[in-house]
Amino acid sequence: MDSFSGVAEDDGELFVPLAGMDGMDQRIIDHAETLVDWSAQIESGDNVVVHVDEGAHDLAVAVAEQLGERGANVVTRYSSPEVDGAYLRASDGAFADNPSFEYDLYVQADSVLSLRGTRNTAEQADIPDEITDAYQQSRMEIREARYDTDWVSTVHPTRALAQQAGMSYGAYCDFVYDAILRDWEALAEEMAQLKDLLDAGSEVRLVKETDRTDLTMSIEGRTAVNSAASVAYDSHNLPSGEVFTAPADTAGTVTFDVPMTIRGTTFRDVTLTFKDGVVVDWEAAEGEETLTSIIETDGGSRQLGELGIGMNRGIDRITDQILFDEKMGGTVHLALGRAYDACLPEGETGNESAVHVDMITDMRMDGTRLEIDGEVVQRDGIFRWEEEFDGS
Amino acid sequence: MDSFSGVAEDDGELFVPLAGMDGMDQRIIDHAETLVDWSAQIESGDNVVVHVDEGAHDLAVAVAEQLGERGANVVTRYSSPEVDGAYLRASDGAFADNPSFEYDLYVQADSVLSLRGTRNTAEQADIPDEITDAYQQSRMEIREARYDTDWVSTVHPTRALAQQAGMSYGAYCDFVYDAILRDWEALAEEMAQLKDLLDAGSEVRLVKETDRTDLTMSIEGRTAVNSAASVAYDSHNLPSGEVFTAPADTAGTVTFDVPMTIRGTTFRDVTLTFKDGVVVDWEAAEGEETLTSIIETDGGSRQLGELGIGMNRGIDRITDQILFDEKMGGTVHLALGRAYDACLPEGETGNESAVHVDMITDMRMDGTRLEIDGEVVQRDGIFRWEEEFDGS
Repeated sequence: MDSFSGVAEDDGELFVPLAGMDGMDQRIIDHAETLVDWSAQIESGDNVVVHVDEGAHDLAVAVAEQLGERGANVVTRYSSPEVDGAYLRASDGAFADNPSFEYDLYVQADSVLSLRGTRNTAEQADIPDEITDAYQQSRMEIREARYDTDWVSTVHPTRALAQQAGMSYGAYCDFVYDAILRDWEALAEEMAQLKDLLDAGSEVRLVKETDRTDLTMSIEGRTAVNSAASVAYDSHNLPSGEVFTAPADTAGTVTFDVPMTIRGTTFRDVTLTFKDGVVVDWEAAEGEETLTSIIETDGGSRQLGELGIGMNRGIDRITDQILFDEKMGGTVHLALGRAYDACLPEGETGNESAVHVDMITDMRMDGTRLEIDGEVVQRDGIFRWEEEFDGS
Repeated sequence: MDSFSGVAEDDGELFVPLAGMDGMDQRIIDHAETLVDWSAQIESGDNVVVHVDEGAHDLAVAVAEQLGERGANVVTRYSSPEVDGAYLRASDGAFADNPSFEYDLYVQADSVLSLRGTRNTAEQADIPDEITDAYQQSRMEIREARYDTDWVSTVHPTRALAQQAGMSYGAYCDFVYDAILRDWEALAEEMAQLKDLLDAGSEVRLVKETDRTDLTMSIEGRTAVNSAASVAYDSHNLPSGEVFTAPADTAGTVTFDVPMTIRGTTFRDVTLTFKDGVVVDWEAAEGEETLTSIIETDGGSRQLGELGIGMNRGIDRITDQILFDEKMGGTVHLALGRAYDACLPEGETGNESAVHVDMITDMRMDGTRLEIDGEVVQRDGIFRWEEEFDGS
């Protein structure tokens, strides 16, 4: 019998409410479930700290529902750039070292879920660097305690982030959920193929015929991380979808044609030339001054700390947010500075530096290839196990 | 010289910007300063936990500025009825006992500032009582640790609170700041007069010729609290402005003509009759069933735990929020249930009960008086030290 007053039982999609929680986009609920189940793997009795950005309220509600269902213990923090900014601007820069009432919260936490969603990406633009630096410096142990948990950072779409991406809010929401609501298990399996190749390989080469890119790196003895958006894979971003390792002995030239904002500065067409693992020449169509100061930070900032290969096909455009950009399928990113220990043999530490600055090159064009030990693994942005791969 | 482009130096109020922080109502900044300085008395190095309600963001920004200026250590929590409600609704009701990662935060805190400002006063209406009870029960030590700090609760005006008060938002903001931005030092001095009378007195009598009110209470040996909105006065609400003590041996009848919402139920014209300190008869024009269940909670719920005398002349109307209503100058409130230890001789505990339910009677009408040991201290809502007092 037809009915207009409730949920029809046998009519398929008709009259089915859009949301599980009243009035809420089903995708927010799916996001929360992915975060809690797949990414953070929360279990009953876990101590969970949730950081809620100003604009991430709706995701926080959906996450709280998931945490309640699982029987986790929850402390919710307000992570507002405006509130924190007001505190920092008013401060004289003398901060207590790792106040224990805050430190003990993180030391005892099993997971820290950061729900990012700023309402203004420029909110902290006018805080003096020396105040921010002093604050960060005073909190190193707190930060380490946080990173010792099963932490996960994710993003709730806001108008401010849509604006930074140059997109309408509706289109940006579609973009974010396409990136986040993947079949992560299937992607993890696909990424495992690349990880195996990198683990077994000795040298990676990037070539792009459209620019001057021809770069080789040693990956001998290094272990790649299958970054599948789950703490089970040592991966702490949702979305993720990249395989990364720690290169050495870099030689040649690479051009980063994906524009991005670093420290408030636009970078465009950065070109780096390496010899014996060290940057010997650099230029940029935009941002060269900031690039120079990054490269000259310390000894480690002249070397690469990361080679990352984006594999998330849900991310199909650049939005000027590194969390998304560097995972885009068909891109490769390299970072100047600090390497991740996970990529090195037990007990060894890799390149050390105060900085870790990612830059991205787009491989999705004719005449590009990514080789491992001379074998083409990706051509024109297509992996060799993908259908469209040109094996000729 | 006249100028339209900036702040004129000599023109008094003309062209003076409205806010100290860009775009912010000066009253919010004054509120934050009153809270941090007068109420919580925050000093450099204090560990401060700030609870931010969904609608209290602007006050949180202003408070953060004050805390930064004073060099306090701050942990900001998100205190959202929607987030907490989603967690509770999804829970099966089995909560861990006082999780230490949260407990340790409060044990080490010097102050807890609760910035209330809900966006929907009915948000948690549909959470089953047994879930809420179990949650509260599991957190008794955390709550006690919070109350062992120099805690202060205050309110940031929201549209939801304006709606509950039956007021426009603009008018409600004026109301809130009139109540909060007082000369607290002067009010504390005025209230000290009443405290001295109560401390020295043996019996209080309330009489209202407009209804059946004629009630006597013993206050022999009890100490009144001068609740001047500051931890220095053992007073933890901003606004405050009441003097309260713990009465005993109540006898006679009292009518509460100020309507209010208790546990989601409207109470109207409650009349209680006492004999030998215990309620022996009660009725209500509205809410009688809930009143009965409150009175019958336990042994202590049949006796008074508090006599409070409102002295905040900035509060000039009832808004159905107990934090404001009970402090209104010219009103008296009595609470069934638990007494405050501060009113009793060292080591003694007063009336004990699981409940503490305040009800208010308006004294601002002809033929009412409040007497201490037979002397009229307040007539028709006017104290005897006030100019308009009718001493005839």
